[in-house]
Amino acid sequence: MPGVGARRYAVLGAGAIGGLYGARLAAAGHEVHFVLRSDLDHVRRHGLRVESVYGDVLLERPHVHADPTTVPEVDVVLVGLKTTHDAALAELLPGLVRPGTVVVVLQNGLGVEARAAAVAPEAVVLGGMCFTCSNRVGPGHVRHLDYGAITLAAHRPDGAAAGITPELGAVAADLRAAAVEIVEAEDLGAARWRKLVWNVPFNGLSVVLDAATDDLVRHPDTAALAARIMDEVIAGAAAVGHPLPAATRDEMLDLTRRMRPYATSMKLDADAGRPLEVEAIHAAPAAAARTAGVPLPSVEVLRDQLRFIDGRSRGTGAD
Amino acid sequence: MPGVGARRYAVLGAGAIGGLYGARLAAAGHEVHFVLRSDLDHVRRHGLRVESVYGDVLLERPHVHADPTTVPEVDVVLVGLKTTHDAALAELLPGLVRPGTVVVVLQNGLGVEARAAAVAPEAVVLGGMCFTCSNRVGPGHVRHLDYGAITLAAHRPDGAAAGITPELGAVAADLRAAAVEIVEAEDLGAARWRKLVWNVPFNGLSVVLDAATDDLVRHPDTAALAARIMDEVIAGAAAVGHPLPAATRDEMLDLTRRMRPYATSMKLDADAGRPLEVEAIHAAPAAAARTAGVPLPSVEVLRDQLRFIDGRSRGTGAD
Repeated sequence: MPGVGARRYAVLGAGAIGGLYGARLAAAGHEVHFVLRSDLDHVRRHGLRVESVYGDVLLERPHVHADPTTVPEVDVVLVGLKTTHDAALAELLPGLVRPGTVVVVLQNGLGVEARAAAVAPEAVVLGGMCFTCSNRVGPGHVRHLDYGAITLAAHRPDGAAAGITPELGAVAADLRAAAVEIVEAEDLGAARWRKLVWNVPFNGLSVVLDAATDDLVRHPDTAALAARIMDEVIAGAAAVGHPLPAATRDEMLDLTRRMRPYATSMKLDADAGRPLEVEAIHAAPAAAARTAGVPLPSVEVLRDQLRFIDGRSRGTGAD
Repeated sequence: MPGVGARRYAVLGAGAIGGLYGARLAAAGHEVHFVLRSDLDHVRRHGLRVESVYGDVLLERPHVHADPTTVPEVDVVLVGLKTTHDAALAELLPGLVRPGTVVVVLQNGLGVEARAAAVAPEAVVLGGMCFTCSNRVGPGHVRHLDYGAITLAAHRPDGAAAGITPELGAVAADLRAAAVEIVEAEDLGAARWRKLVWNVPFNGLSVVLDAATDDLVRHPDTAALAARIMDEVIAGAAAVGHPLPAATRDEMLDLTRRMRPYATSMKLDADAGRPLEVEAIHAAPAAAARTAGVPLPSVEVLRDQLRFIDGRSRGTGAD
């Protein structure tokens, strides 16, 4: 890959994640090509607008494409699609990837890098865990309310820790130069499971109970329930070879108590009538742990409740 | 106790259960004394009305009392209060009980007979599990939509099977003569746990997911979840010494598939803004099983979710 500043990016999806970080990279001087579906015409005409606590960005004439055939060769692809759009990923990603192209999977849940690697085997795949409160509020319009860090780690097909690879360092440098806070992690699996320790209880309970994180963590019964779910996720992580520090649970609960009221990404999806990322966030870790001989019964309750809610709302909401 | 037809009854509460069965006994010729709180003036003025699939009953001038002091000596007390009214039970029951008075606890959940026996130690305590779809739709006004059987069993302080006692036979005879279907059971604990096998999943999920039983049993994920929760309750029953037949789970699921759409008692309570019977239906069996060394993790998830929902609605609804 060429040096800092010269890398060309493609971004799949211009929603809460792709729109936020793609606009940041473009504002920092990178050539960024957005591949869009439903928002294509709107962004072509009106540009891409990101209102952010860290400063607003309006890209008046971004490079937008309906499909990969018109995108020039890029060095890095950011995958900003929801995991509920796997069909679009399989359709769009291969055309953007040549041998050595870096694909950064900015998706939620478990197994998302493996799915990207499966449809684009020539790619060098990284995973990015976004710690941000960002929402697509309309076509070509993202509102970024709080936080913004990404934990980046390199994918290895065998799931073992890959260490800090050169590709990881290069993408981290570009994002930092675009004022995005980056944590480089050596073990993608551990980083994914660590994020699940928070996402499984709080994404799940916020939708099932129609509640914000501060309500959940303030009420003693849901705080105790979240703690037990976290214990299960930590047991699952250990079962699949990614043991997490013992203090992880209490750190995350403390963090949540100190956070301002926060609508999780799944709550935002539910409120907007979008499909829920229950397969990536709840079903995949439950299945991985069960395969490793450690069932996660509370996680499986949430999974089934969320699938019911998701099934009921299909066809009634917009996506 | 005197012979059939001569027994005098007191009924605590004239809601969905006390109103239904008390009116049935009065219509069959028994002297029935209702002890009422909030509905007292209304019932005194307008009577007690039970609309039932088995025939409507209007008691124009029922015996009503504000407290036990004006109630003549009775042979049997039917406890039709919700378990969320334990304070009223402790206040009202002792004044109705003399040595040998039969108390029939027509409440949901686990441990309800022991609580009645604790506040009225001279009573002969029976438990009654009501299989009915009945609802208090207004003061002195009960709507009975479907079913109506009661499983009766005798309480023993040690929790063991008491067999078919004379008092149980006498009350069963009175209720049958009042056209109530009665099943006499030898083991109260087994009967209570058997009812929990259905009540724990369907009361709980109907409230958490705002759904009717037919939706829950038709959706494959909630059907599988209900089956796992039933397995846990059956394991809990075995752990505390009341093993249930292996076929219990599948029988109950089949029954639910064949039932017409049904709003559970907890769903009716939630929709009316009344407190939820989560302590009796979910917390008590989870605690009993945990004490016996068999935690019920899915039941504990429901328990905590329901406590959160219950806590949120307190103060906003009527009771």
